[in-house]
Amino acid sequence: MARQARPRRKKSQAIQQVPWRRLKYRTPPVKLISDDEIEAVHDASMRILEEVGMDFLHPEALAILKAAGADVTEGSERVRFDRAFIEEKIKTAPAQFPFHARNPERTVGIGGDELVICAVASAPNASDLDGGRRPGNFVDFENFCRLSQAFNVIQMNGGYPVEPVDVHPSVRHLHCLKSFITLTDKPFHAYSLGRQRNLDALEMTRIARGVPMERFHREPSLMTVINTSSPLRLDTPMIEGVIEMGRAGQIAVITPFTLAGAMAPVTLAGALAQQNAEALAAIAFAQCSTPGAPVVYGGFTSNVDMKSGAPAFGTPEFLNTQIIGGQLARRYDLPYRASNVNASNCVDAQAAYESQMSIWGLVQGHGNIMKHGAGWLEGGLCASFEKMVVDVEMLQMISEFLQPVSFDEASLGLDAVREVGPGGHYFGAAHTIERYETAFYSPMLSDWRNFETWEETGSETATQRANRIYKQMLQDYEAPPLDAAIREELDAFVAKRVEEGGVASD
Amino acid sequence: MARQARPRRKKSQAIQQVPWRRLKYRTPPVKLISDDEIEAVHDASMRILEEVGMDFLHPEALAILKAAGADVTEGSERVRFDRAFIEEKIKTAPAQFPFHARNPERTVGIGGDELVICAVASAPNASDLDGGRRPGNFVDFENFCRLSQAFNVIQMNGGYPVEPVDVHPSVRHLHCLKSFITLTDKPFHAYSLGRQRNLDALEMTRIARGVPMERFHREPSLMTVINTSSPLRLDTPMIEGVIEMGRAGQIAVITPFTLAGAMAPVTLAGALAQQNAEALAAIAFAQCSTPGAPVVYGGFTSNVDMKSGAPAFGTPEFLNTQIIGGQLARRYDLPYRASNVNASNCVDAQAAYESQMSIWGLVQGHGNIMKHGAGWLEGGLCASFEKMVVDVEMLQMISEFLQPVSFDEASLGLDAVREVGPGGHYFGAAHTIERYETAFYSPMLSDWRNFETWEETGSETATQRANRIYKQMLQDYEAPPLDAAIREELDAFVAKRVEEGGVASD
Repeated sequence: MARQARPRRKKSQAIQQVPWRRLKYRTPPVKLISDDEIEAVHDASMRILEEVGMDFLHPEALAILKAAGADVTEGSERVRFDRAFIEEKIKTAPAQFPFHARNPERTVGIGGDELVICAVASAPNASDLDGGRRPGNFVDFENFCRLSQAFNVIQMNGGYPVEPVDVHPSVRHLHCLKSFITLTDKPFHAYSLGRQRNLDALEMTRIARGVPMERFHREPSLMTVINTSSPLRLDTPMIEGVIEMGRAGQIAVITPFTLAGAMAPVTLAGALAQQNAEALAAIAFAQCSTPGAPVVYGGFTSNVDMKSGAPAFGTPEFLNTQIIGGQLARRYDLPYRASNVNASNCVDAQAAYESQMSIWGLVQGHGNIMKHGAGWLEGGLCASFEKMVVDVEMLQMISEFLQPVSFDEASLGLDAVREVGPGGHYFGAAHTIERYETAFYSPMLSDWRNFETWEETGSETATQRANRIYKQMLQDYEAPPLDAAIREELDAFVAKRVEEGGVASD
Repeated sequence: MARQARPRRKKSQAIQQVPWRRLKYRTPPVKLISDDEIEAVHDASMRILEEVGMDFLHPEALAILKAAGADVTEGSERVRFDRAFIEEKIKTAPAQFPFHARNPERTVGIGGDELVICAVASAPNASDLDGGRRPGNFVDFENFCRLSQAFNVIQMNGGYPVEPVDVHPSVRHLHCLKSFITLTDKPFHAYSLGRQRNLDALEMTRIARGVPMERFHREPSLMTVINTSSPLRLDTPMIEGVIEMGRAGQIAVITPFTLAGAMAPVTLAGALAQQNAEALAAIAFAQCSTPGAPVVYGGFTSNVDMKSGAPAFGTPEFLNTQIIGGQLARRYDLPYRASNVNASNCVDAQAAYESQMSIWGLVQGHGNIMKHGAGWLEGGLCASFEKMVVDVEMLQMISEFLQPVSFDEASLGLDAVREVGPGGHYFGAAHTIERYETAFYSPMLSDWRNFETWEETGSETATQRANRIYKQMLQDYEAPPLDAAIREELDAFVAKRVEEGGVASD
């Protein structure tokens, strides 16, 4: 038959994975501090906005806020906010909303009990064991995109996994977004680096979804992260991002980067109060600009090492702020973004335990979006192929842990206990034989063989095994189908915009 | 002066640690499954004890249980228990009690909101990067004892960190317990390997505490772990341990080792039902033997990899059973023991992430005793010096996380925000300068330097740094003071018992 005549690429033994699935928390979030303490943080953040205020570095923002009734200081960028104004304005932000992928089967939900996991984003360097550490480039960028698609537990790209500095900044967004759209069928992110880049990204996402503009504006399909410039500033491109994404009905994840002792007070209470002030002021601004625009409350409060100035991640302080950040977001009925981060320089025990601490802070705090879920190293300065595999293994275990356990009569297994009895063995029991193939989590990376076998086969660390796994995943990668008409429209748009020179860059 | 004339050993720069302190949970335990599901597990475990029963391999146990009213099958070791009998008998077990160290400042509490962390126990092999993996020996054993003493976050020895097979079994307990007593001033554990060993351990502990027998019997000062021989058996030496420790008012930690698919049903529900049946039957027996004897409900349900038969640790299944085990223990108002475990063959990312998963299962389930807290590798077949340091770092972070965070007016730092204002920097703020030295967790092992500095100084992994740290800790080790009269009495007792040949061994 003709179909069989077509040569199929020979596959190595497939890597075992958990299925793609939407994740929901099955226990309530942890209340680490009391409601009174949450109110104390809220009150402090309101006093900051009332007494100190925040700078909005764009006349359009100042005009929007002034029209809405905020206290804009004449001749300056300083805006002060009454607490009643803030509480009133943020009310129009939706508590949950869908986030559409071009493949409807990869659509996820933002907010409520749902957890969405992103790949690493925004690293200036990439590394693997073979090539070492190198500046970000387009080949690595696209390979990370392929892996984001191939690993089921990764649900979206939350930014460029690594910054491809070999692509000119004027057209980089066009090429990178095209890779997101063609190499993956999952939701993705566009940077807010000036209005025209936002507009290009919006049009490319609309094309990818194959829907008319009006429908696109009703269906969140693109996400941007808006970082405040702490303390208490919102920069020009971020303001343009808030305005353009909101007008198009798309998602802005408002995330102050409040490192205690550097860009925020040295106390966790103070840093959280400042985080809250910045997040709520920017969210209120987003709602003044476009009431009802989908936004997310982002928390990224950690601290610097006071001896060296280096940022610390995955520490007890970070655990505290990840959990308390969730308490704050829920006080305002907003979706919550947190992160999987670490400060290690290589994929070792430190990378794993700091990441685990971050993940458990996020899970206990009911993070709805996990940024930097897989691949982040060196406090974000490097995207590691091996770390991505280590993270995927850890996140697969979280995915499994979030599945309910059955306690029905058959699961309680009284018949098996009766059959086996005291001193017996369950390997051969009927109850076991019926279930053993799917009873337990089957790891992708963890090696449970005994020491002797492990030693005889080369004493590989998890990092060395991760290296083999990521390369096999790339070898086995298949691009998701894309409608030919959409592909054509996308190619034409990118070609035209590249020909026009993209956007003016510095 | 004479005192100054005594040469002091030159110390390298001291390793930074969190202080020795008792640890208390600050949030409620996680309720992973509903009360109805807990009742379903309870009901299944009661049906197991009513219908199938459990074997007690010792005539003394059978006599005690028969006298108490249990259904002992004539001419066999099988005992069936009515659920009313179980519920009635376990009521006399205390919900919490102190665990006395020979140094009163190292006494801890078992049960309630308290967490007590043990060093690794019972590994047949030891390893470090210099010497590789070797069979357990007395030199390694004593070095692990020194480290258990030196690391503040380790609160006790929960068994021999490594089995010193170069010491004859007939006298091993005498030498090892003497090391616990002389090299540490923290609480410790004695194995239940036949009545005479229990009696020797009890007398040595009484001597170490320097108290008369009557007072010793009122003050729990020694712990033993009682493992059931799953499924549904309690062996002779374990029974003797329950009897002798209970009579002396000392602590029995009753821990079924229920590996789903091997010694227990392949389902988590079934394995937990069997764990609960075995634990409660053994605890009821302990209370029949000595009403009011201090006992702990131990949970150690994991699964085997159904392809290889290898036990799995730190998996989603283990997380589930660690948390649900806590729900069960609290249903009976008993202290709860869980573990920090992993199946990795080396101190790599897998060792760290599986341990973290275990730790977070225990913390969310409010484990009161963390067995194998520091140093466990290879599913318990190896005690690793480097893994001990990695675990200590992870547990120090848990210790810090359990400390409350202040949200008072000074901590909220409004004055600092006013001083710094939008676009400023907090490094020089008065609020920062007053607090920066003690504001944040300062790691022992984690390296937060930038990549370039880290690379220039040798690109060490966390495991390589852990190697240096453990050796420095040993170099800096100082034995805790011990009263000369106690030391003399202890030496005399051990010398006499060694001369007598210790105990008969196989």
